[in-house]
Amino acid sequence: MDAYSELEGIFRRISVLEQAEGMLHWDHSVVMPEGGATARSEQLATLSLVVHEIFEAPHVAELLDSAEASPPDDVWAQANLREMRRRWRHATAVDGALVEASSRAGSKLEMAWREARPKGDFSIVAEPLSEMLGLVRRKAAAKSEALGLPPYEALLDQYEPGARTESIDRIFDDLAGFLPDFLQKVLDRQASAPAPEIPDGPFDTATQKALCERLMKHIGFDFDHGRLDVSLHPFCGGVPDDVRITTRYFEHDFTQSLMGVLHETGHAMYERNLPADWRLQPVGEARGMAMHESQSLLIEMQLCRGSDFLSFATPLMREAFEGEGAAWELENLSRLYTQVEPGFIRVDADEVTYPAHVILRYRLERALIAGEMEVSDIPAAWNAAMKELLGLTPPSDREGCLQDIHWFHGSFGYFPTYTMGALAAAQIFAAASDTIPDIKSSLRRGDFAPLMGWLADNIHGQASIASTDDILTAATGAPLGTEAFKTHLQARYLA
Amino acid sequence: MDAYSELEGIFRRISVLEQAEGMLHWDHSVVMPEGGATARSEQLATLSLVVHEIFEAPHVAELLDSAEASPPDDVWAQANLREMRRRWRHATAVDGALVEASSRAGSKLEMAWREARPKGDFSIVAEPLSEMLGLVRRKAAAKSEALGLPPYEALLDQYEPGARTESIDRIFDDLAGFLPDFLQKVLDRQASAPAPEIPDGPFDTATQKALCERLMKHIGFDFDHGRLDVSLHPFCGGVPDDVRITTRYFEHDFTQSLMGVLHETGHAMYERNLPADWRLQPVGEARGMAMHESQSLLIEMQLCRGSDFLSFATPLMREAFEGEGAAWELENLSRLYTQVEPGFIRVDADEVTYPAHVILRYRLERALIAGEMEVSDIPAAWNAAMKELLGLTPPSDREGCLQDIHWFHGSFGYFPTYTMGALAAAQIFAAASDTIPDIKSSLRRGDFAPLMGWLADNIHGQASIASTDDILTAATGAPLGTEAFKTHLQARYLA
Repeated sequence: MDAYSELEGIFRRISVLEQAEGMLHWDHSVVMPEGGATARSEQLATLSLVVHEIFEAPHVAELLDSAEASPPDDVWAQANLREMRRRWRHATAVDGALVEASSRAGSKLEMAWREARPKGDFSIVAEPLSEMLGLVRRKAAAKSEALGLPPYEALLDQYEPGARTESIDRIFDDLAGFLPDFLQKVLDRQASAPAPEIPDGPFDTATQKALCERLMKHIGFDFDHGRLDVSLHPFCGGVPDDVRITTRYFEHDFTQSLMGVLHETGHAMYERNLPADWRLQPVGEARGMAMHESQSLLIEMQLCRGSDFLSFATPLMREAFEGEGAAWELENLSRLYTQVEPGFIRVDADEVTYPAHVILRYRLERALIAGEMEVSDIPAAWNAAMKELLGLTPPSDREGCLQDIHWFHGSFGYFPTYTMGALAAAQIFAAASDTIPDIKSSLRRGDFAPLMGWLADNIHGQASIASTDDILTAATGAPLGTEAFKTHLQARYLA
Repeated sequence: MDAYSELEGIFRRISVLEQAEGMLHWDHSVVMPEGGATARSEQLATLSLVVHEIFEAPHVAELLDSAEASPPDDVWAQANLREMRRRWRHATAVDGALVEASSRAGSKLEMAWREARPKGDFSIVAEPLSEMLGLVRRKAAAKSEALGLPPYEALLDQYEPGARTESIDRIFDDLAGFLPDFLQKVLDRQASAPAPEIPDGPFDTATQKALCERLMKHIGFDFDHGRLDVSLHPFCGGVPDDVRITTRYFEHDFTQSLMGVLHETGHAMYERNLPADWRLQPVGEARGMAMHESQSLLIEMQLCRGSDFLSFATPLMREAFEGEGAAWELENLSRLYTQVEPGFIRVDADEVTYPAHVILRYRLERALIAGEMEVSDIPAAWNAAMKELLGLTPPSDREGCLQDIHWFHGSFGYFPTYTMGALAAAQIFAAASDTIPDIKSSLRRGDFAPLMGWLADNIHGQASIASTDDILTAATGAPLGTEAFKTHLQARYLA
């Protein structure tokens, strides 16, 4: 067997073990009783360790060298080899002792955060977060050396391969310049119209779920290859042939979980349509978190909150809940689903104010990794940035720097991908709309098939064959930029 | 680190990986959509292979030799070392090629069986079962050599360590002599009383589940460390700190799933009470399938189908389903839950006729492994034995030799453990009753705590410290025998 084929076998085993890990994570969030936590942590840690040991075997390094010396002919196989090397560099950059120390520090920090957040008491996390930041800086330094990237980019590269701060800075500065004025115009315009009404509940969970499932099927979700369940924090997990999304139902408001489910369905469709020929190989995986978020935001923001889709969905909502009156009219629901309001909490933010939340976190985490800021500076820096970007001052750190889990389990470099995804979503939908002539009338019939076919060809099926920017350029004619997003915002909020 | 301590680390990893496998099996049976099957098979196969490779590493053989040369002082650690060696012998006896061939043949055979059973057409399985039997004979020969046991005992030892055909023959011959006359007496006596009535449904699933959960809690099941779910074939899975049992609800008859759940709860309590100090070590695992079945049958047959427990449970059943009339009286429910009737199907059999089903399968599988019988002889031999043991002739192989999955995924040597478990259950309950003075009045109050405490000390907490017979002797004063079981049957059915 040649070196490349042998590597395919090794990376197949790695993927399968990571799939097992993924299923156990799903179980942890959806069905596991609390008393199973310790055993589950050990199962997950052991699987990670087994995978780490496979990467670290000297044999794998030798095989990568040999395969690169006489690469395969097929372009997908070549890309696969490139992704193998990338994954190997990430996995082997950090030694076992640092991995273990981070894992231990992470458990301690997350526990402290769970206590600190409801109290809004940053002092509880200050010491364990400092310890974690020290370890993350060491990890960033190790990955920087292995990858030949600056430390923050080396972290970013874990979530969004090939992302560079130069381009993110350009994009984010552009948005930071554009959004404040734009936001003010949207708020002024909104003030002149009646406030939208939330339809009156209660709405029983089974009916909410049935409606969600009905709309998921319209998007193309296949329940022979996936599930919809409940968890505290909604997510998309599972594996491409068994994609599992979750939501949380609120008895008094069905509109939130409905849109949340459609968002996760976008993630699920990406996973489901990854190329079957490259299952269990690095090149067959989703490109990165920005591209992943683009697929959920394309469904949620570009499509489902728009009036074409809502004109299809509104009668189904009325039918499901026997809704009557003004709150159940398309016009009200459209306003409800596009309401803009600056707030403290990122996950509750609309698409106009969301980038401000991301830009804030991006600036802070860059400074933290660069050593230009320390943990004790976070609360004041956070509040100053909120004031600058959204004109708000959080009443406490609970609504401020303690709100997100990311840093508190050691994830630095993830935040920018949310807004990169929002931009990519707009850019991809604009390109798809140019190609598919009657896309709006399809959406008014709840028919997602033409769009899904286009996405399967141009995005989902491309998996990790090229960089995000190259895939975007092939699909939309340009690398990631802000134009389509700004055009979308203008059209939706000021037209 | 000394050799024994190093082995503890290695076997800990093996246990953790097997736990992960167990959780994925649970998911497969309870929540997985059908389209996830291929990916799941690969996850399970890969985990098995990773475990197999750990066993086969030359280092492990060397460590076992060193540890045996200077064994640990602690008796539990000594027993742990003994169990490590036993597991290692089983795992390494069979080479990778045979394991893989068996796994492939098993998938093919199980598919054929799923087609053959509903049709009652044995010819569909004849060829793949012959192939499997050939592989099982090879496996038996390999294990026979590694373990120094006759081939059939080497298979039996996988499920019930230390079980010997000499003692099973003695026990089963005794039962085969006792039961026909006894059965006739029971049937005569039953004929003189009115037939029991099944309470009239329908019974909604949520109410059935709530009642099951209520009774599970009385037995001691802790829902912080376990779950009750639905699957096609009821089982007890999960891990000791997260034990997951399943059932199947019938809308027209709540009595079946109720007793099924109590049975599985017996299995769950054993897992849950295994010694926490020896979690993830071989000595900390359940002793074997006979002991496991003894715990489920102790709860179901010895306790829950008896009138003491039923006098407690009957009012709860009436309350749950708003039941009224003669069918809901203790006397009727007692007769219903102790009705005896020879039938074709093992899993539907009462405790009086069940041993006949097991003896039949035991005799046939011994002859098959010994090469005294071939696959083509099975249908005729099965029907002849049914005629001899229960006086019945199955209308087709669907109700005959195609009914159980065991042989059709390559499990030979498992069947005897069902009846060994029934005998052990009677023997253990008799011993517990001698020690716990007011056990009957506890049961009439639904209070299982005194019995569970005794079981935790004498059975569950003993895990694999000694052989089944040694644990039974310490707990009951004698190795496995038929006396307590016969006494129990006399008392319940003829007193």
